[in-house]
Amino acid sequence: MADEVVLLDFWPSPFGMRIRITLAEKGIKYEYKEEDLRNKSPLLLQSNPVHKKIPVLIHNGKPICESLIAVQYIEDVWSNRNPLLPSDPYHRAQARFWADYVDKKVYDLGRKIWTSKGEEQEAAKKEFVEALKLLEEQLGDKTYFGGDNFGFVDIALVPFYTWFKAYETFGNFNIESECPKFIAWVKRCLQKESVSKSLPDPHKVYEFVVEIRKRIGIE
Amino acid sequence: MADEVVLLDFWPSPFGMRIRITLAEKGIKYEYKEEDLRNKSPLLLQSNPVHKKIPVLIHNGKPICESLIAVQYIEDVWSNRNPLLPSDPYHRAQARFWADYVDKKVYDLGRKIWTSKGEEQEAAKKEFVEALKLLEEQLGDKTYFGGDNFGFVDIALVPFYTWFKAYETFGNFNIESECPKFIAWVKRCLQKESVSKSLPDPHKVYEFVVEIRKRIGIE
Repeated sequence: MADEVVLLDFWPSPFGMRIRITLAEKGIKYEYKEEDLRNKSPLLLQSNPVHKKIPVLIHNGKPICESLIAVQYIEDVWSNRNPLLPSDPYHRAQARFWADYVDKKVYDLGRKIWTSKGEEQEAAKKEFVEALKLLEEQLGDKTYFGGDNFGFVDIALVPFYTWFKAYETFGNFNIESECPKFIAWVKRCLQKESVSKSLPDPHKVYEFVVEIRKRIGIE
Repeated sequence: MADEVVLLDFWPSPFGMRIRITLAEKGIKYEYKEEDLRNKSPLLLQSNPVHKKIPVLIHNGKPICESLIAVQYIEDVWSNRNPLLPSDPYHRAQARFWADYVDKKVYDLGRKIWTSKGEEQEAAKKEFVEALKLLEEQLGDKTYFGGDNFGFVDIALVPFYTWFKAYETFGNFNIESECPKFIAWVKRCLQKESVSKSLPDPHKVYEFVVEIRKRIGIE
């Protein structure tokens, strides 16, 4: 049976980008369906009745929700192509740990940077830079987080780069000068077509953030 | 080489209980080390420098942090004994989804019940019962969340039962009358020695919550 793969997504979503990169890495053809989050499709509501959120991967009619779970699902099903998680259990656990760290820190801190002001914003910027520095330390001199091969932690983390211009503009700071090794790693990732073709232009994301700030009354 | 397995834990931690149950299910002998969270051991700080939290599983000197990651690690290493995750990728993804749901909902809502009052507490109770009802629905008529065999979602969820007496007492409600099928499932889990021997007495947890409430100034 030919696999029918559908992705319910929204273009600026770093979580959606994770699945786009994973599908590209595995060479899986799929139908991309853009959702309007202010008018969610019946298919989205029916596929993710618990959280009602994108992204949702639908494989042969079965929905898989939560981005890192979908990435692991793709890895489990298409295990023979381009492994994204290490086979050694300890290294797998470490990859899961750092991907979880990204989930717990990067999104929330980034959001705080462009939604807050004054002391709260300063605190968020400081914590954000600390988190990136910790990730830099974890990366060390390796090409990718897992070593020589692009994999799970890279996929979890690199989409947030598309939001950096927005963080920098509204936070009035420069991430590359704080974390040059981190940005060097981003550039290595962007040399991969699976990444560059899956990520939107950071300027476009910045314009999107300008819009949301207006909509929620921050200016 | 004989496996050296150490668990850094704190007895009322539902996250620690998950690892205790998993080790018991797999029949793995280990050294239990109780941590004093107000005076964390050098071993804990060195094993989990990022979050500085229990539980930490240490296997042959290598630390694994975050309870669900440790459970999956144990499953990966001792894969030949008593499988806890389904082998089918879609069922694995579903098990991960519901365990993640427990992480996102049950702990925080439970905590809100015993730390808040008035409207905030009423809202937390309502949301908590809704979460349990959704889990009940997911369980359906099955013996365990994964079907006939005790597994990942059961392990992620059943430890919170030890906190129910505290939630009920401070929230002034009765969980069994709201969610009888849920409590019937808890009772089935408790028939397993791996569970009953890994969970503390809910009265003891209740006394512990009384203590914390005093310490943080709620009475």
